[in-house]
Amino acid sequence: MSRNILLLPGDGIGPEIVAEAEKVLGKVNEQFDLGLNFDTALVGGAALDATDSPLPDVTLEKAKAADAILLGAVGGPKWDSLPMAKRPEKGLLGLRSNLELFANLRPAILYPQLASASSLKPEVVSGLDIMIVRELTGGIYFGQPRGVRDLENGDRQGYNTYAYTESEIRRIGRVAFEAAQQRGKKLCSVDKANVLEVTVLWREIMEDLKREYPEVELSHMYVDNAAMQLVRAPKQFDVIVTGNMFGDILSDEAAMLTGSIGMLPSASLNSQKQGMYEPCHGSAPDIAGQGIANPLATILSAAMMLRYSLGEEQAAEAIEAAVSKVLDQGLRTADIMSEGATKVSTRDMGEAVLAAL
Amino acid sequence: MSRNILLLPGDGIGPEIVAEAEKVLGKVNEQFDLGLNFDTALVGGAALDATDSPLPDVTLEKAKAADAILLGAVGGPKWDSLPMAKRPEKGLLGLRSNLELFANLRPAILYPQLASASSLKPEVVSGLDIMIVRELTGGIYFGQPRGVRDLENGDRQGYNTYAYTESEIRRIGRVAFEAAQQRGKKLCSVDKANVLEVTVLWREIMEDLKREYPEVELSHMYVDNAAMQLVRAPKQFDVIVTGNMFGDILSDEAAMLTGSIGMLPSASLNSQKQGMYEPCHGSAPDIAGQGIANPLATILSAAMMLRYSLGEEQAAEAIEAAVSKVLDQGLRTADIMSEGATKVSTRDMGEAVLAAL
Ligand SMILES: CC(C)[C@H](C(=O)O)[C@@H](O)C(=O)O
Ligand SMILES: CC(C)[C@H](C(=O)O)[C@@H](O)C(=O)O
Repeated sequence: MSRNILLLPGDGIGPEIVAEAEKVLGKVNEQFDLGLNFDTALVGGAALDATDSPLPDVTLEKAKAADAILLGAVGGPKWDSLPMAKRPEKGLLGLRSNLELFANLRPAILYPQLASASSLKPEVVSGLDIMIVRELTGGIYFGQPRGVRDLENGDRQGYNTYAYTESEIRRIGRVAFEAAQQRGKKLCSVDKANVLEVTVLWREIMEDLKREYPEVELSHMYVDNAAMQLVRAPKQFDVIVTGNMFGDILSDEAAMLTGSIGMLPSASLNSQKQGMYEPCHGSAPDIAGQGIANPLATILSAAMMLRYSLGEEQAAEAIEAAVSKVLDQGLRTADIMSEGATKVSTRDMGEAVLAAL
Repeated sequence: MSRNILLLPGDGIGPEIVAEAEKVLGKVNEQFDLGLNFDTALVGGAALDATDSPLPDVTLEKAKAADAILLGAVGGPKWDSLPMAKRPEKGLLGLRSNLELFANLRPAILYPQLASASSLKPEVVSGLDIMIVRELTGGIYFGQPRGVRDLENGDRQGYNTYAYTESEIRRIGRVAFEAAQQRGKKLCSVDKANVLEVTVLWREIMEDLKREYPEVELSHMYVDNAAMQLVRAPKQFDVIVTGNMFGDILSDEAAMLTGSIGMLPSASLNSQKQGMYEPCHGSAPDIAGQGIANPLATILSAAMMLRYSLGEEQAAEAIEAAVSKVLDQGLRTADIMSEGATKVSTRDMGEAVLAAL
C-alpha cells in the first residue's frame, strides 16, 4: 500500500516547522512500514510571490490527488495590503472549499508538563481536554452575496452573508456527535439562536440529530456565554460544535487557555476522510527564519493525519508518546520555555522527537 | 431642571436589582438636587406575559420621552421556545434600534477588592481596565435579508446578512476614538478583514478616522486573535472598538476575565447622549426571586447614566465611591463571596451603598 502525502510549508515559520514534521513522518514511515510518499507544493504568500496566485492549479491538483496534506501556515504583513482575492488566506480557504474539508477538529489540551504556561489558575485548567468541531466550508466565510457597494444615497456599504443549509448542518453535526460518543459523551452546540435565524435552524437540526445518538448529552449555549464559560470554567466542556465564524473565535480562545498554542494540532476532513492537517498557530512572521519556532504542533498534526486519514493509530500514538517524552526531558522551545527547562531550537526539538521515537 | 428616568426592571433578577438601584438614585437625587423623576414600564418576558408584545407601544413611547433608561435584564427559559418575533430579546433589540442607541460602552474593570474572583492568574489581570465600544444597532443583528427558506432542491437554508455602511462605521469609530482620547490613547479595532468584505470597509474607515485623532494610537486585530489576546495578556488593551456580533462575544469574554460579571455596568447611547443603562450580566432565572442577586452592576449602571446622559459627574463619582466602600467593608453577595468576607443579600447590599453615600 502506498499513500501520497502533500507537504505545503507555506509562509513565515511554515517551512521550518514542516521540515521537522517531515523528518518525523519519514522515521515512522520506516518504523511502521507505512508506504508514505512525499511531495511538496506552494501555497499562500509563497505561491503568490512565485505565481501570482495564492493557490496555483498545480497545488490544487496535487492536493486533490493526495491522501492527506500537511500544511505549515500562511500569511504575513508582506501580503496584507493586497486585495482580498490575492491574499495568502485565499489559498487556505480555497483548499478547504475545493476539497470540501467541512469538518475542522481542534483539540485544546493542556499538557501537564506545560501547565504553568497558562494565564489561567492551575485549578481552572489542569487536565483540560476539549475538542472543538468547527464547520469549515460554509457559513459567513463562503456565503453569497458579499462585497462592498455604493448605495443610492452616496453612502457605501460592506456586506456578507451568513448562511447554512440543513444538510451542511447535519453533516457537521454527525461528526460532532460521533466525536462526543467516542469521548466524554457531552456535546455543546454553540449558536446565537436568540438573534440569528440561521442559527435557529442550526439548533433545530442539532436537536433532531440527538435521537440518533441517545448516549450523547446535547446542550446548547449562546456564543457570548460560551466565550465567557471558556474563561470561567473550561473543564465543563467535552466536545463543542459550532459554525465557521464562531468556531474560528472560540477555538482560538480555547487554544490560548492552555497557554501553549505552539503545541496544538488541527485536522480538516472531508467525507472521504481525506484531510488537511495544520498547527493551530499562525505563520508568526516576527520569528520566521530564526530557527526558534515550536515544531510540536505540526508534528502532532502529522500524528492526527496518521490517525484520521491513514488509519495508522499505532504510528500516531508513537509520535504522541515521543512528544510527551521530550517534554518530560525538559526540552522547550522559546514559546513554552520556563525556569529550569532546557531551551532548544526548532531543529533540536525535531531531532529530540526523532530520537525519542 | 427636571429629568425623566424610565426604569425597565424586565425579567428574572431584574426587578430585584433595579429596586436597589432606584433607591440609590433616589438618594443622590436628594443629595445633589438632580431633579430626577422616575417612571416604570414593562419589557421582555414580563411585557410578553402582560401584553403579548416584548416591547409594548406604551413602553416605547415612554422610552423615547425619557432622558435616560435603566434596564434590569430580559429573558428566561419560560419564553425560550417562542418564535423569534415573540422573544424577550426582541424587546431589548427593539429599544436599541428604535432609540438608535448605536454606541454600547462596556468597561471591563477588575476591582482590586475582588481580584481573587478571576479565573486568571493575578499578575495577568491585576489593574485590568478595558473599555469595549460595541456597535449596537447595525451589523448582523439587524441586517436584511434574513430568515429560513426552502431551497429548490428540497434542502432548507437559514440566512442572515452582516452589513455596515460607511456612516455607521464612522459614527461608532468617532465614539471609540474619543473614548481612547480621554483614556490611555490606545484604540484597537477588531475585525476579520482577511475574510469578510464588510470588515474590510470597517478597517478602511477606522484608518481614515485616525487622521482626526492624531494623539490616539490605532491598531487592528483579527477577531480570533483578539479572543486569544484577551486570555493571554488582556492588559495590552485600552479601548477596543468592534461590530455588534464580535462585540457581543468579546465584551462577555472580557467581562469574565474579571471574574465578577455581577459588578460590570454598561451604557448604550445615541447621538443625543440619550442612553439606556444596564448590567452586563443577564436575567439569571436560576436565582430570581431569592434576594441573593448582586445589585452592584445595576447601581454602577445608574452611575454611568448620571455621567453620560445627565452630565452629573459628581453624583456618579459619589455612587462609585460608595460601591468601593462597601467592597472595602468586606460585604459580598453570593456571586463574589470569598473566604473571610461577609455574605449579604441583594437588599442588604443596596442598603449598604445607601449608607455609604
Ligand atoms: C487565516 C484565516 C483565514 C483562518 C480562518 O479564519 O479560518 C485562520 O484564522 C484559521 O482559523 O485557520
Ligand atoms: C440578550 C441578547 C439579545 C443581547 C445581545 O446579544 O446583544 C445580550 O447578549 C447583550 O449582549 O446585551
